[in-house]
Amino acid sequence: MNPTLELLYAHRSIRKFTNQRVSDETVNHIIKAAQSASTSSFLQAYSIIDVSDPALRSKLRVLCGDQEYVENAPLFLVFCGDLHRLKTVCDLEADKHVTYTQSTYESGLTESFIIATIDAALAGQNALLAAESMGMGGVYIGGIRNNPKEVSDLLYLPDEVYPVFGLCLGYPDQDPLVKERLPQEIVYHTNRYASVDEASLESYDKRISAYYHTRTDGKIDDTWSKSVFKKFAGEKREHMMTFLQSKGFIKR
Amino acid sequence: MNPTLELLYAHRSIRKFTNQRVSDETVNHIIKAAQSASTSSFLQAYSIIDVSDPALRSKLRVLCGDQEYVENAPLFLVFCGDLHRLKTVCDLEADKHVTYTQSTYESGLTESFIIATIDAALAGQNALLAAESMGMGGVYIGGIRNNPKEVSDLLYLPDEVYPVFGLCLGYPDQDPLVKERLPQEIVYHTNRYASVDEASLESYDKRISAYYHTRTDGKIDDTWSKSVFKKFAGEKREHMMTFLQSKGFIKR
Repeated sequence: MNPTLELLYAHRSIRKFTNQRVSDETVNHIIKAAQSASTSSFLQAYSIIDVSDPALRSKLRVLCGDQEYVENAPLFLVFCGDLHRLKTVCDLEADKHVTYTQSTYESGLTESFIIATIDAALAGQNALLAAESMGMGGVYIGGIRNNPKEVSDLLYLPDEVYPVFGLCLGYPDQDPLVKERLPQEIVYHTNRYASVDEASLESYDKRISAYYHTRTDGKIDDTWSKSVFKKFAGEKREHMMTFLQSKGFIKR
Repeated sequence: MNPTLELLYAHRSIRKFTNQRVSDETVNHIIKAAQSASTSSFLQAYSIIDVSDPALRSKLRVLCGDQEYVENAPLFLVFCGDLHRLKTVCDLEADKHVTYTQSTYESGLTESFIIATIDAALAGQNALLAAESMGMGGVYIGGIRNNPKEVSDLLYLPDEVYPVFGLCLGYPDQDPLVKERLPQEIVYHTNRYASVDEASLESYDKRISAYYHTRTDGKIDDTWSKSVFKKFAGEKREHMMTFLQSKGFIKR
C-alpha cells in the first residue's frame, strides 16, 4: 500500500490540538494543495478565509455551536462557495470588449450554487489531506451554517459568497480510533441504485454501537441508525434556503 | 516534500486512458478511500454507482455532452448525493422503537441537500486521489447534470438521490501540463473577504492565455477571465432547481 492510501485510510477527525503553531510554510502548502484540486470548468468558485484574529475566533466559536476547537485550533479556515468573483470577472470582461454587449453572468442559478459548493468541498478535502500528510489533523465544522448570516457579516462576505464549512487544523493532542464506515455494499452499487440491505445494516449497527461504547466508556452505545435518527431530531438548519436566497443563491 | 503533497500538486485531469483494465483490488482501494473521507455528522449521505455495462455507458456518454471518455474510460463512477438511505433508516428506526412516535426525517430541506452534496464531493476527491496514488488519472464529469432526470432514470435513482458528478478513471495515455491556479492572494484571505485584485488578475490572465496557446498549438489563447465569460455564455443547466425539486430536494 502506498503512503497516500495509508493516509486516506487513517483519517479520523481531530478535535484536540497541541499548542504547536502552524508555520507559514505549512500554511502555504495547505493552501496550494487546496488550490490544486479539480474545479468545475476551471471556474475556481471558492474562497478560503483564514481566521487568525482571536476576537473573531471567539465570536465564531459561539456562532458555530460553541465548539471549543473553533476558538482554539491553531488554524481555522472557512471555505466559501464564491460566485461573486466570477460575476466580477464577467462584468469586467464585458466592459473590456466592445463586441460584448453585456455580462454573461446570471445570478441565482441552482447549478452555479452546486458548482461553488463542490469546488469548495474538493479544495477543503485537499487542504485536510495536505495537513494530515504533514502530521497534522483536523475536523470540518458544518456548524458554520448554524448562523450563516452572522458569520457572513463577520467575515464581510458579499452577495453570492457563502460559508460552506469551517476546517480546524493543528497538531493532534489525541489519537481517536478510525470509525468504521458503512459496509461497502450499502454505499457502492453496480449499474443501478440498490436500496439498503437491512441485514447488512443491522450488523453494521451493532459494530458502531460497540465502537461508541468503547469510545465513551459505556456512556453511549447508539447504533448508526439511532445516531442518524437523533441527528434529524436535532438542529436542522431550516434557515438555509432563506439565507442563501437572501445572498443571491438558488433563486431558480 | 512528502509523497502525498507531491501527488496533490501534480494533479491534472486525464481524459485519455490506455486499455489497461482496473483490477478489482484497485477498485476496492478506490471505494474504501472514498468511504474514508469525512462525512457530516457521520451521515454518509452519498452513494457510488459503478457503471460497467457498455450499453449504459454509451447512453451516459450522450447524456453527458458526448464526452468520449464517459463511454470508454476503464472505470466510470457516478457519485450521488443520497438522502433516501437516511430517510429509510429513520423510518425503520421509528418502526422499531415503540417510544418513537414518528420518523425524524424531513424531506426537502436545503441544508440536507448541502450535506449530501458535500459528502459526495469529499468522497469523490478521496477516490480520485486514491486512484492517482496508484498511477491512475481521471476527470470529473459535471456533464452528468446536463440531463439529470434521464441519468437518474437510467440508474434507477429513487427520490432524494441525485447525480452530483461522474468520475472517469483509468491509466493515463496522455501527460498534460498542470494548469496554474489563481494567485493565492485572490483565493486566500485573512480574517475578511477581499474582492479580486485586478492587477493580480490581469497578470494571471496573461499566463493562462500563454498556457492555452501552448496546449492547443496556438488555436486558443483565452485568458482565464475570457474562459469564465464564455463558460457562463454556454450551457447553464437552468433545469437543476426544477429537477431537484421533482426529486424531493430543496423545497424549503
